[in-house]
Amino acid sequence: MTIHPPKNINIVPFVSVDNMMKLVLNVGVETFLQELATYIEEDFKRWELFDKTPRIASHSAEGVIELMPTSDGEVYGFKYVNGHPKNTRAGLQTVTGFGMLSRVDNGYPVLFSEMTILTALRTAATSALAAKYLAPRNAECMAIIGNGAQSEFQAMAFKALLNITKLRLYDIDTTATDKCIQNLSGNGFDTVRCTSAEAAVEGAQIITTVTADKQYATILTDNMVGSGIHINAVGGDCPGKTELHKDILLRSDIFVEYPPQTRIEGEIQQLPADYPATELWKVISGTVEGRRNSAQTTLFDSVGFATEDFSALRYVRSKLAGTAFFERLDMLADPDDPRDLFGMLLRATKTA
Amino acid sequence: MTIHPPKNINIVPFVSVDNMMKLVLNVGVETFLQELATYIEEDFKRWELFDKTPRIASHSAEGVIELMPTSDGEVYGFKYVNGHPKNTRAGLQTVTGFGMLSRVDNGYPVLFSEMTILTALRTAATSALAAKYLAPRNAECMAIIGNGAQSEFQAMAFKALLNITKLRLYDIDTTATDKCIQNLSGNGFDTVRCTSAEAAVEGAQIITTVTADKQYATILTDNMVGSGIHINAVGGDCPGKTELHKDILLRSDIFVEYPPQTRIEGEIQQLPADYPATELWKVISGTVEGRRNSAQTTLFDSVGFATEDFSALRYVRSKLAGTAFFERLDMLADPDDPRDLFGMLLRATKTA
Repeated sequence: MTIHPPKNINIVPFVSVDNMMKLVLNVGVETFLQELATYIEEDFKRWELFDKTPRIASHSAEGVIELMPTSDGEVYGFKYVNGHPKNTRAGLQTVTGFGMLSRVDNGYPVLFSEMTILTALRTAATSALAAKYLAPRNAECMAIIGNGAQSEFQAMAFKALLNITKLRLYDIDTTATDKCIQNLSGNGFDTVRCTSAEAAVEGAQIITTVTADKQYATILTDNMVGSGIHINAVGGDCPGKTELHKDILLRSDIFVEYPPQTRIEGEIQQLPADYPATELWKVISGTVEGRRNSAQTTLFDSVGFATEDFSALRYVRSKLAGTAFFERLDMLADPDDPRDLFGMLLRATKTA
Repeated sequence: MTIHPPKNINIVPFVSVDNMMKLVLNVGVETFLQELATYIEEDFKRWELFDKTPRIASHSAEGVIELMPTSDGEVYGFKYVNGHPKNTRAGLQTVTGFGMLSRVDNGYPVLFSEMTILTALRTAATSALAAKYLAPRNAECMAIIGNGAQSEFQAMAFKALLNITKLRLYDIDTTATDKCIQNLSGNGFDTVRCTSAEAAVEGAQIITTVTADKQYATILTDNMVGSGIHINAVGGDCPGKTELHKDILLRSDIFVEYPPQTRIEGEIQQLPADYPATELWKVISGTVEGRRNSAQTTLFDSVGFATEDFSALRYVRSKLAGTAFFERLDMLADPDDPRDLFGMLLRATKTA
């Protein structure tokens, strides 16, 4: 007797770039970021049950291609992501990505999705989530140094989660700042264009650094950062790419996602391998205190981790039911008798 | 000035299950296997330039989900594949898969494809390719023990590459043999149904073992294998799953794909870690002799390696131009200005 599998198990929902944008706009950018942060927060709280591994990277002269897998025991997910700093010069994205979720019990994929836009959203949601635990309570003004592709997502997430509405913007390329201000207009921000990083950080309780050049850069020097500040360091995210002067790290309390990965990719690649860094999940789950007082300088050394992509895909999957924001991909062979794959092939029609 | 990227670089060709079947039937199964074997052979010849890593596995009680990446320096590829032995009981495939290729220089995907059918084809093509170098020259008869999903692919590949037309078939489940004989009819085979593995190997110069149960099994015992035989051991392909009695291994010359993987997953998991095993690429590239004489017993301990999937995807990609056997997936965000991802999102239309 042939047991028939669940109907249409061979069909995998696919969220294209176009459908991802429609989904985000229909939910609303701020609501999307808030709900996404809730999923990320939930998964940080159950951090210990995840199958964690550093990303698997394939390096070349031009950049890196990475696979980031993880699993919570019921659902498996991975993201494909590239990082090619010179792409921008050719009119291409520095970072693109896609990802999928599948069932651990039978290995069948259940979601396939673009992740260029989704990664931008999850990076921003994770930054704002970390700041919820680490930034000074009275924070109302954020400096954003680097006004490229990630900057508006950061601004929207900090508004959605922390009600930050005052922004001080700086980029070495003034057209990037123009673009950022224009994109954020009408969203209730009070934006100030600054002529230097020094000027941008004045009066800000939160400093977000999110520059794109792949090099050891010093966007912030020690004298620019007063005590009590929260630094959200987003741009230092691969070997050879940092943004902060080492002295800032030495007087900050440092919080990271997954130490084995951050010690290679984050700002703390500048520090000895045993330098103290607190895992963010311990703060979110209440095991370790985040911000203790108003004089403490906190630093979220963000590099992005597989569980955050997992949370993002899990959230997107939860939003698809009853919508038209996905296509159906015929991705998995589904013969009536699983042993009869060749027979299925023979019986297929030849014509397109 | 904005530099415009190559047109439609955001669109990735996708080969669905339906289109893969149409492509294979249009090329012809035997021609497809011959051409595919040529691509696999080419890549074995340039083995040393590949970025090789054992597959990245996520194990669970029910099975395993794996990512198999590789790169030749110009093109990067990976396959997602699961192995869930109990799936068959629920009417599902034990193994399903999909894969992709991307450009190393910019990280952009260039092909996305089903790989359940394609994996079956590449496994068979690799087996026949190995046998071309290892089987006795006068071979005309092959025993196939295990007549499940992979059996007909093996038969077709050995006919296409070695002109093997005499088959001796055995499976503990006689309906599997019925299915195999029926699927192969009309393809010029002389098939003999056998009532035991012992009977099946009688008079065969090549023995293919391709059973599915996940256990330490003994499909072949030492007394069943005469000298001069080539054994194509396909089914022993993960930890805890073997098909051959250890004594057969001890008197065979053993050939493997990638030792770090085969020592964990193949028949040789039964042997000490330093037991001699010759890498197949050395035989194919002419560095090491394969079959030396007619008395030698040769064993291809096949587990499947990432480069073979890479070759298969590379071959499929070469066949798509000018055909209708693919869809176009809107997989990659492509803003006019790469820094303006958020602006692209804002300007998208909300409605489906």
